[in-house]
Amino acid sequence: MKETWFYESLFPSVRLGLKVKGTLVSNKSPYQKINILDTYEFGKVLVLDGVVQTTERDEFIYHEMLTHLPMLSHPHPERVLIIGGGDGGILREVLKYPVKEVSLVEIDKKVIEFSKSYLSAICKNSFNDRRANIIIDDGVNFVKERKRKFDVIIVDSSDPIGPAKVLFSSKFYRDTFNTLSHNNGTFAQQTGSPFLQREELPYVYRRLKKIFPFVSTFSTAVPTYIGGLFSFVFASKGIDPLKIRLWEIEKRYRKLRLKTRYYNPEIHHSSFTLPTYIKEAVEAKRNG
Amino acid sequence: MKETWFYESLFPSVRLGLKVKGTLVSNKSPYQKINILDTYEFGKVLVLDGVVQTTERDEFIYHEMLTHLPMLSHPHPERVLIIGGGDGGILREVLKYPVKEVSLVEIDKKVIEFSKSYLSAICKNSFNDRRANIIIDDGVNFVKERKRKFDVIIVDSSDPIGPAKVLFSSKFYRDTFNTLSHNNGTFAQQTGSPFLQREELPYVYRRLKKIFPFVSTFSTAVPTYIGGLFSFVFASKGIDPLKIRLWEIEKRYRKLRLKTRYYNPEIHHSSFTLPTYIKEAVEAKRNG
Repeated sequence: MKETWFYESLFPSVRLGLKVKGTLVSNKSPYQKINILDTYEFGKVLVLDGVVQTTERDEFIYHEMLTHLPMLSHPHPERVLIIGGGDGGILREVLKYPVKEVSLVEIDKKVIEFSKSYLSAICKNSFNDRRANIIIDDGVNFVKERKRKFDVIIVDSSDPIGPAKVLFSSKFYRDTFNTLSHNNGTFAQQTGSPFLQREELPYVYRRLKKIFPFVSTFSTAVPTYIGGLFSFVFASKGIDPLKIRLWEIEKRYRKLRLKTRYYNPEIHHSSFTLPTYIKEAVEAKRNG
Repeated sequence: MKETWFYESLFPSVRLGLKVKGTLVSNKSPYQKINILDTYEFGKVLVLDGVVQTTERDEFIYHEMLTHLPMLSHPHPERVLIIGGGDGGILREVLKYPVKEVSLVEIDKKVIEFSKSYLSAICKNSFNDRRANIIIDDGVNFVKERKRKFDVIIVDSSDPIGPAKVLFSSKFYRDTFNTLSHNNGTFAQQTGSPFLQREELPYVYRRLKKIFPFVSTFSTAVPTYIGGLFSFVFASKGIDPLKIRLWEIEKRYRKLRLKTRYYNPEIHHSSFTLPTYIKEAVEAKRNG
């Protein structure tokens, strides 16, 4: 029988290939092409505009890191805003905390609908949680209105091409700054592979630095995000994550009785350590 | 013009694809198929039996981590043994130290020959260094003879399939133990992606634990080694790398005036931190 392979179209000269059992969703929303594939190695895979967003098998790595770093860096997060995150993975992780409210602002309602139908292993019952407030809107508009304040804001978007591009603009970062509740407020966002998407992290870092007093970079490695280390930015008005001691993170983690498969307080702490060439790239751009 | 892509054949259901400018070497030695490709994203790429070994663009990550972790964990390495490493990348890194001798034992002389001709960006002038002692032999035989002792032993081999399989055997590890000079002797080896090659790291860890008093795992992420974090084992008769303080590593690094692009003492220190699911996999096997 002929094998079917899906090849990601994110980079012109390097590709991830996944052997496919079948295509569950092949759709087009007003914002993007949406595919859900059933694959041999990674289970069900959400693909937007040809780019792998999340997979059943490795989603825990990205979702745990992007959630627990900003959440555990905050002393007691009660109101959380997720921008994007229509697959429900970040929402699931945030709901492990005794939060009062989680607002999830996703521009594309079809992503949520297909995730509920096909990616229940990722979103679990998160969308039905009484604390979850699902809003179909443009995240840029939502933070511009500044109606409410949030303790933690997590941007879980695709790369800065297509509908997510505006989520990497200075305007959006200023509105995000003003939407954070007070000095303890924390913000996190993915910034791609510093190896293959060389400009993205330094660019975002430099923009955030002009707005937030504390900006840091953390990283992890996600099997389906090719390009070695995968980077994230962390920003806050008053919290320097590098100054939070390991024992403090451990205390918060234990007290909350969090169950995680990838994240642990030592990983939290060490994920802020950058290889020399990435550190230099970030710092060079800041001074440029 | 039609695009040419190379797809790695290491895993049955997930693939790395590299866009190829041309094929520089397509050969067969008594041990393996040898290809050197010229690619758009990673420059020249060494491929053995269909598996990417090293590339001009990202080789520094793997070579620096596999070299400087065991080298800087040793207080004053003078005699170093490299098993495999025919591309010369580990040799280049080891020669940055004031060592008296580096023996490189490579089974396949064709790998060295082609690397000298086509991968000079990786091996530089390492093979001509007067301290380099190049031996074409089976690494297993070499350590079995135990003629000399070494302060640091680095195994830079392909995966435990094909010619490198014997480099993951208990017999080889016992001979390696006996070839290490004394209590300060350190040993390191790659153990693949714990995500895609789930058995490899726990298997090697368990074998080493029966022979060495100190066995640890460290990790990094290499763009062309797909599968997220890439793991290594560290073993020693007397050195617990987790007990070496960061300032001690920093002191050694500064004193030697090492120039590295990826490695730095903070990365050294944090690379021993494991995600929960990998830690559990390693520990479960140890008790099994």
